[in-house]
Amino acid sequence: MSGTNHQVRLAARPVGEPRPTDWEHTEEPVGEPGDGEFLVQVLYLSIDPAMRGWMNAGRSYIRPVEIGEVMRAGAIGRVIASRHPGFAVGDHVSGSFGVQEFCVSDGRGVTTVDPAVAPLPTYLGALGMSGLTAYFGLVDIGRPEPGQTVVVSGAAGAVGSVAGQVAKALGCRVVGIAGGEEKCRLLVDEFGFDAAIDYRGEDIRKALRTHAPEGVDVYFDNVGGDVLDAVLPRLARGARVVVCGAISQYNSTEPKGPANYLSLLVNRATMTGMVVFDYADRYPEGVAQLAAWRAEGRLTSLDDVATGGVAAFPDTLMRLFRGENRGKLVLKIAD
Amino acid sequence: MSGTNHQVRLAARPVGEPRPTDWEHTEEPVGEPGDGEFLVQVLYLSIDPAMRGWMNAGRSYIRPVEIGEVMRAGAIGRVIASRHPGFAVGDHVSGSFGVQEFCVSDGRGVTTVDPAVAPLPTYLGALGMSGLTAYFGLVDIGRPEPGQTVVVSGAAGAVGSVAGQVAKALGCRVVGIAGGEEKCRLLVDEFGFDAAIDYRGEDIRKALRTHAPEGVDVYFDNVGGDVLDAVLPRLARGARVVVCGAISQYNSTEPKGPANYLSLLVNRATMTGMVVFDYADRYPEGVAQLAAWRAEGRLTSLDDVATGGVAAFPDTLMRLFRGENRGKLVLKIAD
Repeated sequence: MSGTNHQVRLAARPVGEPRPTDWEHTEEPVGEPGDGEFLVQVLYLSIDPAMRGWMNAGRSYIRPVEIGEVMRAGAIGRVIASRHPGFAVGDHVSGSFGVQEFCVSDGRGVTTVDPAVAPLPTYLGALGMSGLTAYFGLVDIGRPEPGQTVVVSGAAGAVGSVAGQVAKALGCRVVGIAGGEEKCRLLVDEFGFDAAIDYRGEDIRKALRTHAPEGVDVYFDNVGGDVLDAVLPRLARGARVVVCGAISQYNSTEPKGPANYLSLLVNRATMTGMVVFDYADRYPEGVAQLAAWRAEGRLTSLDDVATGGVAAFPDTLMRLFRGENRGKLVLKIAD
Repeated sequence: MSGTNHQVRLAARPVGEPRPTDWEHTEEPVGEPGDGEFLVQVLYLSIDPAMRGWMNAGRSYIRPVEIGEVMRAGAIGRVIASRHPGFAVGDHVSGSFGVQEFCVSDGRGVTTVDPAVAPLPTYLGALGMSGLTAYFGLVDIGRPEPGQTVVVSGAAGAVGSVAGQVAKALGCRVVGIAGGEEKCRLLVDEFGFDAAIDYRGEDIRKALRTHAPEGVDVYFDNVGGDVLDAVLPRLARGARVVVCGAISQYNSTEPKGPANYLSLLVNRATMTGMVVFDYADRYPEGVAQLAAWRAEGRLTSLDDVATGGVAAFPDTLMRLFRGENRGKLVLKIAD
């Protein structure tokens, strides 16, 4: 295999929003798979808010991307050369292949996916890590009961849209919070939410009095900041807050804590952090359930496919923080 | 029964710190118990940080004290007249008798206490609501395992000092956070904590690296604010944060949320609010266990008895917010 592998590497640790100078665009010859390895041509990259955290130094749930390292990214690719008994040329695979066009893999953490069952981007979205995050976060941490009220922030995003639909499938009343009227229509019309709140145009706390009059039993938070603070006073007794993410805070140099956290005390509520990697041994269960709901038409997967190849990665990542994506944002790298 | 009952009533809802003008000192004739009632002479009032919350309007875990109402307070008293079959003259009783010298009661929420077993103020402290709050908060919400590290803030206070000793009795390593060297000595020398951190003189986060090198498994928080924020980054994986109170925030007109709350996500930790009243049907279990530990010498009850009668209530309450109490603060009303 000859040719050039274009890559995006971390050049500097950003302060606040990542800037173009925080990235280095590099190229090198496409690697040769050794014994027990295979070569993947990357087709789609998963673009995730969590990437911002991986760029920071310091202890977290996963080691930071080092300066000079190819940026970490989940991806879907196609095996184009193999010296590995478990992966054949032509297989479609999902793994952490990074922001590059080609990746040599030893198969660890790599699974095969079937393009006949779902479009490839969906294996990064509703049937991928985003879907699994929503599923385990809601089912294991949120633990909603049928008839309870579930509120989801970042509800038009990759995780939020699935979390809301999972809650519906479990028999809950679901209220989504998103930015802008168009996204709010999407929540109700496409994803089947019972109600939507536009945090840009509405007072969330007031709107929750209307849409969650008995209080919020489960709050699945992808956003943090002011949205979290607006939901906290509306918690029902014994509510569960799932801390899945805080996209409003990732670029902040002065992160804001939830001033209304004492609502946890007043309402005997609990706020719990979750990381999807902890559920690795249950991924098959999650994927099977999500795929079944999708097959039954109860789970709509909305994939937002950006183009431009690896060179477009820095700009595409910023689309997340500007709230420009609808559903799962992926970056197409090759056909 | 003739005589005068001096009382302290809520005159205005405080903004920030309660001021003298937020209280009204009143007097009225001592009440007469009707059929099924008894008259209590109040001996000791429980002085609690939670009182500040009861002075605010709005939904909380208990209804607010109304303007013009006698201020709510837990108390120990003596029955001096009775037309109730369950309470006899001479009985010592514990109940919510309010900031006044005499109270007519129908017996609801009132229990008898035995001055031969423990000094009367202890029935407001280690063997009263403070002790029960510490016990259920730690055992039910914190759920520490033997050998784990438990950190307690407000550790020289009524609840914190018991929480730390309960954790010791359960086989944990216990680190207390308190203000000033003298209180820190108290934690180690009197209450048997393994280590103490002076938040006024030390960097809590650094000190926790020394005293909790493997991380904090259970954090029992009575303080909130900067102390909570300093402990959060040191949580161990799967840690439990018990939100018992936030004395640093109760007088704040701009409460501060824990900016480091995303440590819950990184560490898959949980933060849960608790209100002792939820455990009413288990109070006997809690009191029995606390009394047993006390009898075995494993639970020291430190009672800080202020004097001056009901007139001294406003000033005595402020001692809590200035951190001047050691252990359980009570106000003596009569011999």
